[in-house]
Amino acid sequence: MPDLPISVPPATDPAALVTGLPPMWLRDNCPCAACRDPRSGQKLFQITDLPDALAIGTAAARQVHGADAVEVIWSPDGHRSLYAVEWLTARPGDPAQGDHRNEAGKQLWEAADLGALPEADWSAYLSADRERARVLEAVQRLGFALLRSVPAEEGQVLAVARSFGFVRETNYGELFDVRVEPAPDNLAFSSLAITPHTDNPYRDPVPTIQILHCLRNAAEGGDSGLVDGFRAAALLREQDPEAFAVLTSTPVPFGYRDARAELTAHRPLIDLDPTGRIREVRFNNRSMGTLRLPARELEAFYAAYRTFAELLLRPELQLTFRLEPGDCLIFDNTRLLHARTAFEQSGARHLQGAYADLDGLASTLAVLRRTAVLDELAELFNGPGSADYLGEVVTVAEHMLQAGALAEAAGAPAHLVAAALLHDVGHFAGPISGDELMAGTDNRHSHTGADLLARWFGPEVTEPVRLHVAAKRYLCAVEPGYRARLSEASEYTLQVQGGPMDEQQAAAFAALPGAADAVAVRRWDDEAKEADASTPDFEHFRPLLASLLRR
Amino acid sequence: MPDLPISVPPATDPAALVTGLPPMWLRDNCPCAACRDPRSGQKLFQITDLPDALAIGTAAARQVHGADAVEVIWSPDGHRSLYAVEWLTARPGDPAQGDHRNEAGKQLWEAADLGALPEADWSAYLSADRERARVLEAVQRLGFALLRSVPAEEGQVLAVARSFGFVRETNYGELFDVRVEPAPDNLAFSSLAITPHTDNPYRDPVPTIQILHCLRNAAEGGDSGLVDGFRAAALLREQDPEAFAVLTSTPVPFGYRDARAELTAHRPLIDLDPTGRIREVRFNNRSMGTLRLPARELEAFYAAYRTFAELLLRPELQLTFRLEPGDCLIFDNTRLLHARTAFEQSGARHLQGAYADLDGLASTLAVLRRTAVLDELAELFNGPGSADYLGEVVTVAEHMLQAGALAEAAGAPAHLVAAALLHDVGHFAGPISGDELMAGTDNRHSHTGADLLARWFGPEVTEPVRLHVAAKRYLCAVEPGYRARLSEASEYTLQVQGGPMDEQQAAAFAALPGAADAVAVRRWDDEAKEADASTPDFEHFRPLLASLLRR
Repeated sequence: MPDLPISVPPATDPAALVTGLPPMWLRDNCPCAACRDPRSGQKLFQITDLPDALAIGTAAARQVHGADAVEVIWSPDGHRSLYAVEWLTARPGDPAQGDHRNEAGKQLWEAADLGALPEADWSAYLSADRERARVLEAVQRLGFALLRSVPAEEGQVLAVARSFGFVRETNYGELFDVRVEPAPDNLAFSSLAITPHTDNPYRDPVPTIQILHCLRNAAEGGDSGLVDGFRAAALLREQDPEAFAVLTSTPVPFGYRDARAELTAHRPLIDLDPTGRIREVRFNNRSMGTLRLPARELEAFYAAYRTFAELLLRPELQLTFRLEPGDCLIFDNTRLLHARTAFEQSGARHLQGAYADLDGLASTLAVLRRTAVLDELAELFNGPGSADYLGEVVTVAEHMLQAGALAEAAGAPAHLVAAALLHDVGHFAGPISGDELMAGTDNRHSHTGADLLARWFGPEVTEPVRLHVAAKRYLCAVEPGYRARLSEASEYTLQVQGGPMDEQQAAAFAALPGAADAVAVRRWDDEAKEADASTPDFEHFRPLLASLLRR
Repeated sequence: MPDLPISVPPATDPAALVTGLPPMWLRDNCPCAACRDPRSGQKLFQITDLPDALAIGTAAARQVHGADAVEVIWSPDGHRSLYAVEWLTARPGDPAQGDHRNEAGKQLWEAADLGALPEADWSAYLSADRERARVLEAVQRLGFALLRSVPAEEGQVLAVARSFGFVRETNYGELFDVRVEPAPDNLAFSSLAITPHTDNPYRDPVPTIQILHCLRNAAEGGDSGLVDGFRAAALLREQDPEAFAVLTSTPVPFGYRDARAELTAHRPLIDLDPTGRIREVRFNNRSMGTLRLPARELEAFYAAYRTFAELLLRPELQLTFRLEPGDCLIFDNTRLLHARTAFEQSGARHLQGAYADLDGLASTLAVLRRTAVLDELAELFNGPGSADYLGEVVTVAEHMLQAGALAEAAGAPAHLVAAALLHDVGHFAGPISGDELMAGTDNRHSHTGADLLARWFGPEVTEPVRLHVAAKRYLCAVEPGYRARLSEASEYTLQVQGGPMDEQQAAAFAALPGAADAVAVRRWDDEAKEADASTPDFEHFRPLLASLLRR
């Protein structure tokens, strides 16, 4: 008999876990399928839909797939919610928890704190998820990373942007050229140093990522500099809290205009989030406009502004390095200031730049991390899965890939494609092997597989896997001719697994909520034993699996 | 003799205007060409470049082109700054002045406040700058506008976005489809109402503009709704200040995930700027995640959240209308919530959407407003300028267009192209006409022209115009053969204008800072008298002129 999904655990006092919690909050987080779409996780009701006098009616301990849970029946509407104890007991956290935009989620630095630069080879970055995740993680945590050996060709900067996100097109185009060539009549761009600044402070929303790709750098000098603006702002807060208070509370006008654009933004030099954490730094003397305030406020602002500017120029804050052709710098334009040292005008220098956004980068990184946990499953397919499958004409991996492909071809929902694809992983996971099963010992592989998969997936994937052996025993009992079509190996294991169900067992199985799903998986399982069938590989299914991963 | 650009005015006490001002602020706003690039207006020095002990050395009244000014000689470095009195006496303003992102720059509304919807025909919007400015101004001020008769074809939503800014590409693509077709197995999108929400609260930076283009709407019901979130937030502040305080100070986690994206943002439902003004509203029950706070704070948040949600649903706040095929709604996604009423599933409904940003829209609007002031000049070329030019073989307009084109072909800087193009506008502006000049009365058209142009342009444009007659008199005095090459009409007017300069006058002219520019304009003036020369029209020069307009 399969486990019932819910059973009563030994005595505890589950009411204590929920009675202290605000009912609106608890109910707003009800994970049931009527309250949240199981696939997207999106909430399906409005907060105003909840009754004014919402209260916990009864609370009782339950077990869900072996995990402790509390069942709440709500008053006055009788709605039923089931909360995992693990979820209920999560410590009330920092409101900034998981926020990757403010200082709490960053590693602030001065130049000496950094050993080797966070860098990667472009081709390794493109081919290995792990390299790519490492680079993107550096941009998120340190504010920058350097890609080496990006082909020194025009337009490649866009390929870099698109490797992790989306190009933010501006009035400068999709990309812009930073060219300094010997041109004595253009002194502004000749040998002058450009002090640390953020780009486009006159844009709102400001582009949150900048990418600079070096195509040529034959000039002497012209090195690149970076300063961690969050670190500088944190130093200011420490050393001159009043100046910090002034800069965080004074909107500053920034402006840019040319024939075809006129951009203005009013934002503070240091922007805090509502919890008081540093969230954005804007600093650009060139495009700062005229501040109009009472004289005393102007005085306080200018004193603070100069203190911050001096701080940003401190040598120990400056990280300096040279961009060579093929180098591509990705940095957080809401945090890092960039600069160029002075140089002798003895050669040409050409960079191409583009803007992008941090949210796209964070999304790509999250998906990479998410799918990285699937590597272990991929290993099962490539390693032990390539062994013979209990005397069938296919390997276990071929068998599971065929089952997944059959489910996909049948237009099955994603969770059933996943269940079909993964239904036999238990052969590699439990203490008893598939060979021992063939030698007459039931390895209960449907249960060990479901338990293994519960690390990644919810019950919509694990339960059809758990029940796929029971489904065979059920079909043998209720469907004339089914048993006769079983393969020789499957007929053998049927006996080891308990043989066909009796009438009472079959009725109990049919009454399970997951019975239909399990039967569907079972049918793809039975069909997936064709020699030399052409099937997609595991990587084909990775995005589908990733979409089903538990949060 | 031309006016000297600076002369001493009658007695006032100019020191009084500057002594009360913070020296750092005043110096940071020095408008001289060494401190600010005259073309871009960008600052050319760092705040840290200024001496610590900066102080006003002397302050003295001056006149610059007839306007009162104060000249400051700075201690200790002797730098000289010249400030217009008009600039110095500008009232210390609101820090939010000119900020088009917060509530101060908006017209908040309830449905009854709006008469006719702010709308325009797509072809009129495309062809008339005034229509386009009116639509964009509505988006900025009211939060939305409606374009009618946009061809109901796929992809047109991108043409709308590009008509005022740049598409913000996301994981949903450059555009996305909102399709509701009879499909009983997709109940989530069938006949349900979608309550007011903002889009993509899980994105940071959030897309600040959304565009929805209706391709088909054969369904009964399915009307569109808009709510002014700023108005609702202002009502909350008025009616429940504590709830307002809670919602503005609590970062809320928002999330979205699918197979290829995982977006999270932590932002308050109501975001204030550092001056406490409402700046952004985020509201989306579907993608709000789990808030982890101490129970008392959760209770306060949920009470405030429900109050705000109820407020947003008040019927008097809801503006409801129907999108017909070809209608395209542009709205501010940081301010307006959009909704869809329930509908009977009797037909197909298909919208296409795209995101863009407010800063690009504001820039386009500013440039439209800026170039609109040039319409008056364009009129001069099309109207009076098409008259004969004082007996020459070209009209005045042809003459000036030729002069502008010659300057452009010579690679002259923009301000000299403009001066050449506009050097004779004084013939239409002063009380004495060009015909009277030919009858023997000097109309001083170089001065009236320069004074007229000062409404739009700085001295780099107006002064070469002011001096272009003096330049003729100067060249006649110093350049052998120059006078002999003058046209017959020009030789005649030379006499009326005072004849060649004497030696002393010529030396004084040559010493003027603008002499070289004036001579350059004069030479294009002299050459620009070819019959039937092909020249660009006034519109060709509009962007160049726009780039030179005074702020």
